[in-house]
Amino acid sequence: MGQQQRGEETRSRILDAAAERFAQHGYAATSVMEICQRARVTKGAFYHHFPSKQTVFLELLNRWLLGLDERLAEARAKASSVPEGILSMADQAQHVFNMAEGQLAIFLEFWIEAGHDPAIWQATIAPYRRYRDFFSNIVRAGIAEGTLRQIDPEMAAQVIVSLAAGLMLQGVFDPKGADWGQVARQSIQMLLEGLERKRA
Amino acid sequence: MGQQQRGEETRSRILDAAAERFAQHGYAATSVMEICQRARVTKGAFYHHFPSKQTVFLELLNRWLLGLDERLAEARAKASSVPEGILSMADQAQHVFNMAEGQLAIFLEFWIEAGHDPAIWQATIAPYRRYRDFFSNIVRAGIAEGTLRQIDPEMAAQVIVSLAAGLMLQGVFDPKGADWGQVARQSIQMLLEGLERKRA
Repeated sequence: MGQQQRGEETRSRILDAAAERFAQHGYAATSVMEICQRARVTKGAFYHHFPSKQTVFLELLNRWLLGLDERLAEARAKASSVPEGILSMADQAQHVFNMAEGQLAIFLEFWIEAGHDPAIWQATIAPYRRYRDFFSNIVRAGIAEGTLRQIDPEMAAQVIVSLAAGLMLQGVFDPKGADWGQVARQSIQMLLEGLERKRA
Repeated sequence: MGQQQRGEETRSRILDAAAERFAQHGYAATSVMEICQRARVTKGAFYHHFPSKQTVFLELLNRWLLGLDERLAEARAKASSVPEGILSMADQAQHVFNMAEGQLAIFLEFWIEAGHDPAIWQATIAPYRRYRDFFSNIVRAGIAEGTLRQIDPEMAAQVIVSLAAGLMLQGVFDPKGADWGQVARQSIQMLLEGLERKRA
């Protein structure tokens, strides 16, 4: 096994160990030392790969978001029009709710710590702004193909992301309050009614 | 001063003292003892009025929501149609953002504690479900007056509340990311396009 490959393997073991500890004991109650023990790596090896526990968490979040990005891209590629693609993306919501279930406390604890560190904070909201760009491009494509009205793409993306964030928030805080996957689809459908160009 | 009046005065002093301590030192770092010291009441008096620090927080939240409810009711009463009323409610968003600014850590800390207590948790999400009822009634009125399409009132209310929650979330997490008051108005306007009954 080459040095680079061994490095990758160590890095991945740290991430897996951290994910397990966070899930079992929470974010705040997990120390770097405990992650090292579970991953069977030295503190030196840990800090070689990650500057802090926060960056491990961010990396786990990014790893998970990459999976979501692939699903969104696939939904878009398979759809024959932009509105159909957006609706098919809404169907991914159930998957997001499933993944997020039971993780609320971990996120809350992370955010409390992140709030004190501007650099971590910027990294935390970066994916968020990225989704705004992602959707404004999609809306632009919808206007170009003639399925969406001449709306402001930035604003429409803002509405889509806000709606998605609000649905996530409710699904995570009040999981039994509704069938959130179903609500996500119908909500997006209702929004699309306002965005779609009506055929004459 | 009668006994009831004195009781009210003590209760109100406890709430004010708690609000000040939470704002200065955070929710987690504030003990019941410290609230008592600042309010100049005994622990006995505190527990006569409130069973826990969580219930004090919930009462502060409710006091603030009552103010919001009045603003929403006023916006509705002054409007000549339901869509106009909803748009005017969106204009209250700026006020909500202003109030929430800098309070994020306090809410996160409260939620971490609330997550362990089912009764507190129910009380926390109660206003949320109340707003869903509030808006489904408004949508029903809009359908009745002929300004809104024959949409499912529950679902439309869900969309409005989800959008509002998502905007709040972004405004609180990323206050400098946009002019959120402006975004709130335009988002709701875009959503209304899909809900309004088109004049023939």
